[in-house]
Amino acid sequence: MQIAMIQDKIVPASELEPVYFDRGTFFGDGVYEVMRSYNGRIFALEEHLQRFAGSLSGVKITGVDIDLVRSRILRAFDAARIGDAKIYFHVTRGSQPRDRVWNADLQPNFFLTVSELADNTENKTKGIAVSTHPDWRWKRCDIKSLNLLANVLAATDAAGKGCGEAILVDEHGLITEGAGSAFFAVLGQTLQTAPLTANILPSITREYAIKAGSNIGLEIVEKSLTVEQAAGSDELLIASTTQDIVGVVRFDGKTIGDGKPGKYTRLLTQEFLSFTVSTPR
Amino acid sequence: MQIAMIQDKIVPASELEPVYFDRGTFFGDGVYEVMRSYNGRIFALEEHLQRFAGSLSGVKITGVDIDLVRSRILRAFDAARIGDAKIYFHVTRGSQPRDRVWNADLQPNFFLTVSELADNTENKTKGIAVSTHPDWRWKRCDIKSLNLLANVLAATDAAGKGCGEAILVDEHGLITEGAGSAFFAVLGQTLQTAPLTANILPSITREYAIKAGSNIGLEIVEKSLTVEQAAGSDELLIASTTQDIVGVVRFDGKTIGDGKPGKYTRLLTQEFLSFTVSTPR
Repeated sequence: MQIAMIQDKIVPASELEPVYFDRGTFFGDGVYEVMRSYNGRIFALEEHLQRFAGSLSGVKITGVDIDLVRSRILRAFDAARIGDAKIYFHVTRGSQPRDRVWNADLQPNFFLTVSELADNTENKTKGIAVSTHPDWRWKRCDIKSLNLLANVLAATDAAGKGCGEAILVDEHGLITEGAGSAFFAVLGQTLQTAPLTANILPSITREYAIKAGSNIGLEIVEKSLTVEQAAGSDELLIASTTQDIVGVVRFDGKTIGDGKPGKYTRLLTQEFLSFTVSTPR
Repeated sequence: MQIAMIQDKIVPASELEPVYFDRGTFFGDGVYEVMRSYNGRIFALEEHLQRFAGSLSGVKITGVDIDLVRSRILRAFDAARIGDAKIYFHVTRGSQPRDRVWNADLQPNFFLTVSELADNTENKTKGIAVSTHPDWRWKRCDIKSLNLLANVLAATDAAGKGCGEAILVDEHGLITEGAGSAFFAVLGQTLQTAPLTANILPSITREYAIKAGSNIGLEIVEKSLTVEQAAGSDELLIASTTQDIVGVVRFDGKTIGDGKPGKYTRLLTQEFLSFTVSTPR
C-alpha cells in the first residue's frame, strides 16, 4: 500500500486526484506564459505561442498541440469577457508517482487563468522604486519554466523594501534582468539592456520596447549594465507583459534623474501603446 | 469574474480547490525531504528534520512546526506498515492567486507519501553507469527546494543513455554532485568529494559516507573533482538516501577499475549499513 498525507489527513494514494502527483509541483517540471489583452484584444498572441513552443522544446515536453493551446486561450478569453485581461497558462509534463526520470507516455497537464489586470496607472505616472538582489536563478533562464523560486525570493525581498521590482545581479556584478521584467537604461541617446543569452528570458515586451526605442530614434545597445552604470543612468525602466513600460525612479535608494519617469520613458510608453492598438488579434 | 481552465474545461476559479493555486506549482515555492526506513526504523530522522528546518528558513517559509511535521511523519509511517519505506514530504508556501510576492498570512501546504523502496540490490552488486551533464541548477543548491527541473533534465538524459545517475558538471569543468546523490571518488587511500558550498546539497548520506570512510581508514578530501580526475579514479560511488552507497563502474562510457564495485566501495557500504542498524528511531 502506498499512502499519502495532506496536511493532517492520511489517505490512500490511489484515491488522490492526479493534480497531487503533478510533476509541476514535485519538480517545477513545466513551462508557462503570461499574456495580456488591451481593450478586448490579446497582444502578441503568436509571439507568446512561439516562445511557448520553444520552452516546451527546451525542456523536452512533447505531445502539446500549439493550435489546441491557442484555441483554449481564445475560448477562455472569450468566456471571461474582460477587456484588459491577464492570461496565465502553464503546461506541466504530467502526473506520475514522484521520480526525476519521467515516464515516456505522460499526458501533459494544462492550466490557465484569465483575470482582471491590476491597474498600474500610478506606477506608470509616478514610476517605481527597485532594489537589487543576487541572481540565484538556474542557468537556463532562456526557458520560461516553473522553476521560479529565485524570482519569488527576490521579488518579495524588493516588496519588503517598498520596491515594485527586484533587479537581478549576477556574480560578476552585472545586471541580468528584473525578477519579472526586462530592464533598460537610457544613457544619452542610447537604450541599453542585457543581450539575450542563456541567462536572460527572451522577453516579448523587451523586443517591442527595443522596437519602440528604435522608432523614437534611440540607439539600441545590447550590453549588460553594472550596478554602478545603472545607478548613474539618465533614465531606467522595466518592461513586462502585464505592465508594459514603467519608469524606474529610485534604484537601491538612489534617485534617478529628477525622480519622475523621464522623457524617453514617456516617449517609449507612447510608442509601445501604438503597437498594442494596431496588432490584430 | 476570474476563470480557470483545466485541460479543455472552463471553470470559475472560485470553484477550484486550493491545490490548483499552490505556489509549489506556480513557482516551485517549497522545500522537501526524502527519508527511508531500514527494517521498520526511520534512518536519520532528526538530521532530516533539522535540514528541513534549514530549508524552510532559507526560503523564508514560516509557521511550520517541526514537532508537528515529525508527528505526521511517524503517524503516516506507522499507518503504512512498510519495513523498508521511502518517505517523501514537501511543504509549499501555500495557495493564493499567482503572484511572485507572497501573502504574509499564507498557510503552508503539507504533502507526504510513504511507499515501498525500490530494491537496489542489483545496483549495489553490479554497480551503475553514470553520465555527465551540465549543472544548470540554481545558485542555492544548499536549499532543498522544489526547483528541480535541472535535475529532472539531467537524470532523464542519463536514463536515456542507460545510466543510473547524472553527474553534474559546473561551468569550470568541476563536478558538483549527482542529480539526486552525492558523488565520491576513491584515489589511493583518499575519499574525495566536493566541499559543501552554496552549489551543493548538504546531503545527510554524504555525511554518513564520510564518517564511514573515516572509520575504515580513508583520508577524507573535500575538494571538487574535474571530469578527468573522476574518470581516472580507482573507484567512484554515489550516496543517496534511497540507495545509500552504490558503486559507479562506468563514467561517460569509460570503465572504472575492473568494472565492478571496488574494495573500498564494498567496505564503505558495509560500514554504512552498521549505522543504519544502530540508529534508534
